Amino acid sequence: MSDTPHSTLDPGRLERQGFPEVIYCEGKTAGQIADNLVALAAANGHAFGTRLPEDRARDVISAVPEACYDPVTRTITLGEPPAEGPGWVAVVSAGTSDLPVAGEAAQTLRFLGHKVLRIHDVGVAGIHRLHARIEEIRGASVVIVAAGMEGALPSVVGGLVSAPVIAVPTSVGYGASFHGLAALLGMLNSCAAGLTVVNIDNGFGAAIAAHRILQSSTPR
Amino acid sequence: MSDTPHSTLDPGRLERQGFPEVIYCEGKTAGQIADNLVALAAANGHAFGTRLPEDRARDVISAVPEACYDPVTRTITLGEPPAEGPGWVAVVSAGTSDLPVAGEAAQTLRFLGHKVLRIHDVGVAGIHRLHARIEEIRGASVVIVAAGMEGALPSVVGGLVSAPVIAVPTSVGYGASFHGLAALLGMLNSCAAGLTVVNIDNGFGAAIAAHRILQSSTPR
Amino acid sequence: MSDTPHSTLDPGRLERQGFPEVIYCEGKTAGQIADNLVALAAANGHAFGTRLPEDRARDVISAVPEACYDPVTRTITLGEPPAEGPGWVAVVSAGTSDLPVAGEAAQTLRFLGHKVLRIHDVGVAGIHRLHARIEEIRGASVVIVAAGMEGALPSVVGGLVSAPVIAVPTSVGYGASFHGLAALLGMLNSCAAGLTVVNIDNGFGAAIAAHRILQSSTPR
Amino acid sequence: MSDTPHSTLDPGRLERQGFPEVIYCEGKTAGQIADNLVALAAANGHAFGTRLPEDRARDVISAVPEACYDPVTRTITLGEPPAEGPGWVAVVSAGTSDLPVAGEAAQTLRFLGHKVLRIHDVGVAGIHRLHARIEEIRGASVVIVAAGMEGALPSVVGGLVSAPVIAVPTSVGYGASFHGLAALLGMLNSCAAGLTVVNIDNGFGAAIAAHRILQSSTPR
Amino acid sequence: MSDTPHSTLDPGRLERQGFPEVIYCEGKTAGQIADNLVALAAANGHAFGTRLPEDRARDVISAVPEACYDPVTRTITLGEPPAEGPGWVAVVSAGTSDLPVAGEAAQTLRFLGHKVLRIHDVGVAGIHRLHARIEEIRGASVVIVAAGMEGALPSVVGGLVSAPVIAVPTSVGYGASFHGLAALLGMLNSCAAGLTVVNIDNGFGAAIAAHRILQSSTPR
Amino acid sequence: MSDTPHSTLDPGRLERQGFPEVIYCEGKTAGQIADNLVALAAANGHAFGTRLPEDRARDVISAVPEACYDPVTRTITLGEPPAEGPGWVAVVSAGTSDLPVAGEAAQTLRFLGHKVLRIHDVGVAGIHRLHARIEEIRGASVVIVAAGMEGALPSVVGGLVSAPVIAVPTSVGYGASFHGLAALLGMLNSCAAGLTVVNIDNGFGAAIAAHRILQSSTPR
Amino acid sequence: MSDTPHSTLDPGRLERQGFPEVIYCEGKTAGQIADNLVALAAANGHAFGTRLPEDRARDVISAVPEACYDPVTRTITLGEPPAEGPGWVAVVSAGTSDLPVAGEAAQTLRFLGHKVLRIHDVGVAGIHRLHARIEEIRGASVVIVAAGMEGALPSVVGGLVSAPVIAVPTSVGYGASFHGLAALLGMLNSCAAGLTVVNIDNGFGAAIAAHRILQSSTPR
Amino acid sequence: MSDTPHSTLDPGRLERQGFPEVIYCEGKTAGQIADNLVALAAANGHAFGTRLPEDRARDVISAVPEACYDPVTRTITLGEPPAEGPGWVAVVSAGTSDLPVAGEAAQTLRFLGHKVLRIHDVGVAGIHRLHARIEEIRGASVVIVAAGMEGALPSVVGGLVSAPVIAVPTSVGYGASFHGLAALLGMLNSCAAGLTVVNIDNGFGAAIAAHRILQSSTPR
Repeated sequence: MSDTPHSTLDPGRLERQGFPEVIYCEGKTAGQIADNLVALAAANGHAFGTRLPEDRARDVISAVPEACYDPVTRTITLGEPPAEGPGWVAVVSAGTSDLPVAGEAAQTLRFLGHKVLRIHDVGVAGIHRLHARIEEIRGASVVIVAAGMEGALPSVVGGLVSAPVIAVPTSVGYGASFHGLAALLGMLNSCAAGLTVVNIDNGFGAAIAAHRILQSSTPR
Repeated sequence: MSDTPHSTLDPGRLERQGFPEVIYCEGKTAGQIADNLVALAAANGHAFGTRLPEDRARDVISAVPEACYDPVTRTITLGEPPAEGPGWVAVVSAGTSDLPVAGEAAQTLRFLGHKVLRIHDVGVAGIHRLHARIEEIRGASVVIVAAGMEGALPSVVGGLVSAPVIAVPTSVGYGASFHGLAALLGMLNSCAAGLTVVNIDNGFGAAIAAHRILQSSTPR
Repeated sequence: MSDTPHSTLDPGRLERQGFPEVIYCEGKTAGQIADNLVALAAANGHAFGTRLPEDRARDVISAVPEACYDPVTRTITLGEPPAEGPGWVAVVSAGTSDLPVAGEAAQTLRFLGHKVLRIHDVGVAGIHRLHARIEEIRGASVVIVAAGMEGALPSVVGGLVSAPVIAVPTSVGYGASFHGLAALLGMLNSCAAGLTVVNIDNGFGAAIAAHRILQSSTPR
Repeated sequence: MSDTPHSTLDPGRLERQGFPEVIYCEGKTAGQIADNLVALAAANGHAFGTRLPEDRARDVISAVPEACYDPVTRTITLGEPPAEGPGWVAVVSAGTSDLPVAGEAAQTLRFLGHKVLRIHDVGVAGIHRLHARIEEIRGASVVIVAAGMEGALPSVVGGLVSAPVIAVPTSVGYGASFHGLAALLGMLNSCAAGLTVVNIDNGFGAAIAAHRILQSSTPR
Repeated sequence: MSDTPHSTLDPGRLERQGFPEVIYCEGKTAGQIADNLVALAAANGHAFGTRLPEDRARDVISAVPEACYDPVTRTITLGEPPAEGPGWVAVVSAGTSDLPVAGEAAQTLRFLGHKVLRIHDVGVAGIHRLHARIEEIRGASVVIVAAGMEGALPSVVGGLVSAPVIAVPTSVGYGASFHGLAALLGMLNSCAAGLTVVNIDNGFGAAIAAHRILQSSTPR
Repeated sequence: MSDTPHSTLDPGRLERQGFPEVIYCEGKTAGQIADNLVALAAANGHAFGTRLPEDRARDVISAVPEACYDPVTRTITLGEPPAEGPGWVAVVSAGTSDLPVAGEAAQTLRFLGHKVLRIHDVGVAGIHRLHARIEEIRGASVVIVAAGMEGALPSVVGGLVSAPVIAVPTSVGYGASFHGLAALLGMLNSCAAGLTVVNIDNGFGAAIAAHRILQSSTPR
Repeated sequence: MSDTPHSTLDPGRLERQGFPEVIYCEGKTAGQIADNLVALAAANGHAFGTRLPEDRARDVISAVPEACYDPVTRTITLGEPPAEGPGWVAVVSAGTSDLPVAGEAAQTLRFLGHKVLRIHDVGVAGIHRLHARIEEIRGASVVIVAAGMEGALPSVVGGLVSAPVIAVPTSVGYGASFHGLAALLGMLNSCAAGLTVVNIDNGFGAAIAAHRILQSSTPR
Repeated sequence: MSDTPHSTLDPGRLERQGFPEVIYCEGKTAGQIADNLVALAAANGHAFGTRLPEDRARDVISAVPEACYDPVTRTITLGEPPAEGPGWVAVVSAGTSDLPVAGEAAQTLRFLGHKVLRIHDVGVAGIHRLHARIEEIRGASVVIVAAGMEGALPSVVGGLVSAPVIAVPTSVGYGASFHGLAALLGMLNSCAAGLTVVNIDNGFGAAIAAHRILQSSTPR
């Protein structure tokens, strides 16, 4: 009696939105993910998936052995990314627990052909660590900053650089962090003007936002 | 017994963050605003203030008659903006009540020397109105989209253009809109990847975010 | 010492509310569900249950092998539905993850003797997909629209059709979706007038609402 | 320097959505409202506005003396409504303070050419009052129920009638009613299946929802 | 290095607050619960525990075989309750899923020596079921009403009886019930005057409140 | 065109719920209040109204000079209360700002013929003040405790007396008190068993709850 | 009929809690405030009040001309403060709008005999301003940090000093700051260990907390 | 393809913030924890970790057998703490379930070389228990008070002592405690002036705050 339909590919997305389709693995079986990877790689030359848990990844790799899985960021890649473009993105994170989200952003950017510089462990409670790296960060065309708990790092970075800053709240924290709500509110209310914010833990979205910036322009 | 200190100017902001100081008029007296306008115009050639209520604006204009006040966006300008740069920004809004927020973004962009195209009254309940304008929007280097109520317009725009899209939730609505919370949550959860979001009614912040993008690159 | 009472059947519901009793399987044992199915089918000619997890469904099927279980919508049916009435319902959904909720609505409608057209994968980030199907949707007597994340699809549909539109927020999303709250608020604040909303993930309730409309009238 | 644009009429709405444009007076001047009334009445034969405060209404009436203002529902009407159609709507309300919202629904329905029966003061704390009127209510093609505080009335009505029931939470209450949130949540979680809900205080939206039902069908 | 202290008995509670100590089993081991039951029964003649999961109950029963466990209400009793006093309590519940909470109240009352009448399955969506039992309920000295979802039942009961009514919101529901918040808010905002409310799922607290009423007075 | 109906009296309430109708003055004109007072006093021998602002009270007193208004509790009384019954109520409050709410409870109880003892200024930050009065409080048949801010006083009182304790959160506080929400949550989560709670600032409801207790029993 | 009681002085507070009574002026008349000032100054040698609006202050000064009112912090003082103790407090604030709250803390500290250093305008978006002052701050025995918007300043300060840091969220901000909630959550979730937090806008409470620290110890 | 970086030690923290680095074990593997313990003990003479679940602790102890694990507070210690300083801290808790949080504070303080007095089971529903211990508590230089549910204990303690009081809300409770939110709000709104608050369940943070106080001063 069931007639539940299947999802369909969206071949025009690249033209309309400027980036190829990516597999959101949550709620998909290993078989569906494997099929999608192969189909997208055949169409685009390479394919990419996010939010893939480690146990399911094993089954995907069994089916598509040439795919490459990264357990920290829970992303999977098939095929070579395009050649790197001229601009690059600094992906800055506050604490060790923010690394999966920052890493999801970095892996997505690499899949889209962008060079990435990772700067980590520069949370605001030890602000000297950020100062030691700020000149490097100033060279980036776009800066992504991931932080949990009070989410203050983007405010400090945003006051020190003139590039676009995309803030990613993470769900790192406990008690009154309310699964990232505290960080999200902090970033939306930043006293550093011109920050923009994406959803909690949305490293992928931050990367696409950076990609939209990079592709619509020629960096200085 | 009071020793309440006064705020000080921040001459290094332009160098650090890439945009000159702007006067946030809420909580300032007409005299303070007038002094700030004159001082900043003397330093930078022009000056700009936001969130200036109409009655206080009259007193400011009395003191600085060459300043220009716009009652819809509640902004005030003194001096000529810089020559327009090469890229331009589309400022798209959903309904009539969103115009003050969208206008604050537009006025801020003009103050910073950017060309702006206003597209209004294209809310998603009459989606044909957006389709009629979408080709124009596609020419922009950056797109700012302001919407209240359910805040759905940025999702639709984000699916139709490849440029960076900055979503501005407005406090337009009543009841379960909770003063813009519904629109804010809608934009953060957009199914169009790569949108970024600023605080409720923060047209100024959206403009600065667009400025960060434009100044860090040469548009295509 | 326990004297916990048992639930009782409500034979008058059909007369009062216009639809037969349905089994809400959450919190019931397989044995209770099987007994209920048999008793209701004996009384009404057919029986229907919702929210039945797959593992418990196996035990129910063992006891009542002629029952039919659908794992996507987690519904179970026993006996033939009544002959289809003259009007029909379009059940529209935004993304793949919304299919279980949309499907629960569709299965409930079929159990109640209504024809259903499923339209899926027409989320607002690729609005052309909706336009390709809108003429079909316009033929429906009632339209049910299920969407998670920002929940914008009902607003767009509501602006394109004149039939009653019942919006179903789903708990699809993460972070600031707050388990469907973002979609719920979006739908309640829709700029398309005359939408009505049911509880998060309540496909069943949307179907009963559609049934109330269809049975109180003769469609055009 | 201001270039704030003006709102434009949407002549195709009647065809697309099945009801003529209505003036939402909040945030409009008396002059704008008067102009809109005259223009819409010229186009459609009659015109209607909601959310018009009493003091601004006086100015509108000065400009358009043949318009008719109702201070309880804060609605204004110009011209005769269309002839009444065959079905009719019961508009049921719980307490005296819910009358403005219920009345907004009733006035909107009359403007759209529907017959309305008002049933008031039947809150659940005196359930006998509802029972005395329930046979009348059962004759309606659609039932709108407005209630504040705990918002329980729609659940009781929904269990007693088979017609479509549209629940309107009102902001009536204090303390933990949180401006209608308690009533809204109560209605969304109703144990009476097939209720649908609109935004807090949205009598207008409930009326349009009823209109969508009535116009898409011929009542029994 | 650990010096974590142990909890101590509070022998004076009966005198101060009028009821003996009861074991809240959540977070206690089977051994601690067994020891507490034996010690309290030795002191008071009987003992009682709440919130005891079924698997841990088995170990408690192994250690104290004469104890009696009720799996629906998750309560355990050791020894005979005192002779019943003159007044009695009606424990009314809306749906099948509310039975554990209503049952916890009933078991607690019996432990304290009060006669209880259980009335169940009288939710407001089938209000005739309540009317059939209301005369019985009117004979009670105190009425406890447990309901989840929209939590409307106490309002209706409170309008029909003059005895004290204690409302217990339950966490039954899904989506926008937010684990009992909708029912809690509904009960706090009841239009029936003089209802009082306890915490979500707090059948025990409702019983103690009823006990405070019964013991401070001689029923009519 | 307006047909807004008027509210009607509910003569059977006394029999059904055990207390006469009381006028909730919010949203009523001085004329309506005056009429209601006179009508209810004619029917019941005395009449009572709550939530009457001082300026409107002046107009009511002009129309009904024998009525008596209390500006602190914002209540109005006409006629003599009934003779006092045997039990009495302690109305305990934490701080000076809680007096209006506690006073509303006291005035309502007097109107209903109950003796009241007021105990004030015994907040938990100076717990010795409560200890000095606790023996008096222990003599009451019912204890009402009003407190704002953290709302801790009912917990302490509930641990010291065996009578029924009705907790009234007040909206006293600022910042994270969220208009009484902090006090409300504190009271619902009290570690003193058997407290019951009414809505924020609902002194009237607490009094009716006490009345329900007193009238259903003969105090010890 | 009114018997509303009056608040009483608490002469033992100084001994119990270590600080004299302070007048919270909100909700008190000018006459009551004047009486309290005079009475407390007579008892303690000096008196102090907070949250006194400017218009009411004029009436207080008329009655007690030797009192001194500070309009920015809305505090009033009568008599000389005690001689300054050995330790001192740094009161640090982020933006101009935070000055009233920081000033309330400073005035309270001076009233209690503590030396204060004000550091202002050192918000995190211009972190160099904080670095220029950090050596001064490090000399303090206690540091109070007031900030609104995202409330990040205490985290940065807490990472740079070893003294006790008391964070005061202010209600400065708009939109998703939710009247100080964003700053409050940020401070509670600070990644700088050992920060403590007081209520939104509670400069007075922060000062008392600092006083508790200073008086229980001899600073280094 | 993964280049996820590793966390780095922060050797300067002791100098900047006055306390050595502590291992937050949540999200770290047993191997990482063991390595960190050994490295920090080598650098500082002793090491300490918090939030270590019991099963993972077994693996850490296998690798570092001389480490000492406390299962109630889930802390681990390696090496001897420093000699005790002159002041000491009272760690007061309300109920048995608050012991893990209070214990985390106590263990952290001992690791930092501070003497601790534990006072437990003194919740406000049996206030005599607190009075029996209050003289002991008055001798402390700092008082930490941990409580869940309504979180009232710090208010009572704060009114009885003049030392600094640090309130720790715990997540103990159910229903409307919302995982510690009720206790947190209660403590932030305390009527006892000068309390400060840390995050929910943050016993560690409370201990560091006490350490900041003790080290910046010589206790009386």
